[in-house]
Amino acid sequence: MIGGRPDVVERCRPVFETLAPSPDCGWGRVGPEGAGHYAKMVHNGIEYGLMQAYAEGMEILHTRKDMIEDVAEVGRIWQHGSVVRSRLLDEIAESLCADPDMQGMPDSVTDSGEGRWTVAEAIDLNVPAPVITMSLLARLSSRQDTSYASKLLVMMRNRFGGHPYERLLNVVKKP
Amino acid sequence: MIGGRPDVVERCRPVFETLAPSPDCGWGRVGPEGAGHYAKMVHNGIEYGLMQAYAEGMEILHTRKDMIEDVAEVGRIWQHGSVVRSRLLDEIAESLCADPDMQGMPDSVTDSGEGRWTVAEAIDLNVPAPVITMSLLARLSSRQDTSYASKLLVMMRNRFGGHPYERLLNVVKKP
Amino acid sequence: MIGGRPDVVERCRPVFETLAPSPDCGWGRVGPEGAGHYAKMVHNGIEYGLMQAYAEGMEILHTRKDMIEDVAEVGRIWQHGSVVRSRLLDEIAESLCADPDMQGMPDSVTDSGEGRWTVAEAIDLNVPAPVITMSLLARLSSRQDTSYASKLLVMMRNRFGGHPYERLLNVVKKP
Amino acid sequence: MIGGRPDVVERCRPVFETLAPSPDCGWGRVGPEGAGHYAKMVHNGIEYGLMQAYAEGMEILHTRKDMIEDVAEVGRIWQHGSVVRSRLLDEIAESLCADPDMQGMPDSVTDSGEGRWTVAEAIDLNVPAPVITMSLLARLSSRQDTSYASKLLVMMRNRFGGHPYERLLNVVKKP
Repeated sequence: MIGGRPDVVERCRPVFETLAPSPDCGWGRVGPEGAGHYAKMVHNGIEYGLMQAYAEGMEILHTRKDMIEDVAEVGRIWQHGSVVRSRLLDEIAESLCADPDMQGMPDSVTDSGEGRWTVAEAIDLNVPAPVITMSLLARLSSRQDTSYASKLLVMMRNRFGGHPYERLLNVVKKP
Repeated sequence: MIGGRPDVVERCRPVFETLAPSPDCGWGRVGPEGAGHYAKMVHNGIEYGLMQAYAEGMEILHTRKDMIEDVAEVGRIWQHGSVVRSRLLDEIAESLCADPDMQGMPDSVTDSGEGRWTVAEAIDLNVPAPVITMSLLARLSSRQDTSYASKLLVMMRNRFGGHPYERLLNVVKKP
Repeated sequence: MIGGRPDVVERCRPVFETLAPSPDCGWGRVGPEGAGHYAKMVHNGIEYGLMQAYAEGMEILHTRKDMIEDVAEVGRIWQHGSVVRSRLLDEIAESLCADPDMQGMPDSVTDSGEGRWTVAEAIDLNVPAPVITMSLLARLSSRQDTSYASKLLVMMRNRFGGHPYERLLNVVKKP
Repeated sequence: MIGGRPDVVERCRPVFETLAPSPDCGWGRVGPEGAGHYAKMVHNGIEYGLMQAYAEGMEILHTRKDMIEDVAEVGRIWQHGSVVRSRLLDEIAESLCADPDMQGMPDSVTDSGEGRWTVAEAIDLNVPAPVITMSLLARLSSRQDTSYASKLLVMMRNRFGGHPYERLLNVVKKP
């Protein structure tokens, strides 16, 4: 994804043809200076959403061990002919074959910036991007040891929400 | 919130006037049999969203201790004249006055069903209810000791996403 | 919500006591210079979430007209003794009493900045705020005449997803 | 994705080898009776999330026409070597090459059930699946001609939120 003046991009063609996955495709000019970085940013934003979609689906499968006996086998099957086959699925299928339960794996997911830049840009442009946004927020949640917001919910529920029967008694007694 | 045939509701009027927070208002017929429970279900769905909105805002304030010196004081001020004043805010303000840091409070939030019923009903009706839905999902997240989905994201990132510089080197070397 | 040096805030006390909804409460110092604006920003972020939660719940009720005969009556009842009673609910109940179907009302919701500032700040702080965030995104969606993203989904579905039976036939015929 | 008793699946092997995209891979037993349908349901839930992630990213690119001169070209480049390359991206890239602006394309996205089943199952299992869930809700939103919830927000804003300057004047005048 190259940004720059057409003549400059053309002059650098040998560089891009050497670096690209294949010389004739796998690279191209997408706009003026900065456009390449911009497209790469959005690429990574999309990647956040894709990764989270797979991860959620795999967790559902893994949770129903009574039904899905081997989640890695499902990933392997999907690599061949399914609508969700992809480069990312190849990674997932290989990983799950090697370690389907991922015991001992940490579950704090870092982010390197492109996701939050994409989210900020979408909001600046008034483009609703709920999936990319929620995939970023899922990572933020994963990194919290404790959640102040959740503690506050627990405290509120302790005061009224969790005990509807006792409250009813109070109402009856009140008059 | 009473559901039932008008004549039946009328006959039971003394019961409702006795139970209601005040005899003349604070209760009413909202529809046929079941309508009262239905309205109460949605009431609780809304409550999920309200609680989560406050909790998120208070967490933001609490995180910026350099700026907001006393989050409980903010809650107390909002009780008087602000647009967000409410019965729930009264609970929050009192709670935070007593224990602003909530150390030792658990952060696993249970749910008693009405939230998920509201979410299911909204989807059945093709009504998008993102805020009520996300407030339910925030509670589900709060109850997970570890997240299989997040582990899978960590594993994926270990394979490619987390090391952009090393990948670049590989690409350069490849030809 | 006042930010400033304690001695400066104290000197201005008569101003605040005059402007506040009530002289003794309804105002207070929350931190250094800027803290008042900061607290007000978060106040408005919370308000976004609260408004959206009520709006979603009311839409669910309104959609089930077979069950809830008078959505305005539900709002009125909730004003007395319910857990969701609030300043905002008072506005909603009055509005719905006057015009429960809101025919002719536009459904493009503007935003004046505080919501998106709150969302950006939450992400900067690594605080997941899904409800406040989704309430902002719901407003962005409401302002789109057409959605490029949705068009792309329709186009994709036309190519494969929308016609599972025809695809199955193709698969059977293929060998 | 086949569910059934191992001996039954084995007996039907010739059927599966004939139907599968390739005889040796592209199919497999994933669990007992029903497991195949279950895995297919989750497959489609994931597909919802993937499609929405791409659609959001492409809308961001399309909105920045000053930066990204040819969104179809970006899709084409990503097909070769990028982390987001996939079967779905192939569809998107081909579609956008043929019709990058999609003028006249409707933007009401239907759903055929598997998405909402996946969302319901995730909630039943207490698995937070925000991205799959939000991709379903985005489709629900896309099908609404008008939004009762948004109308209610507009009405509320008309009453207080949209006119902060006028309200300030009122507050000043009040004493």
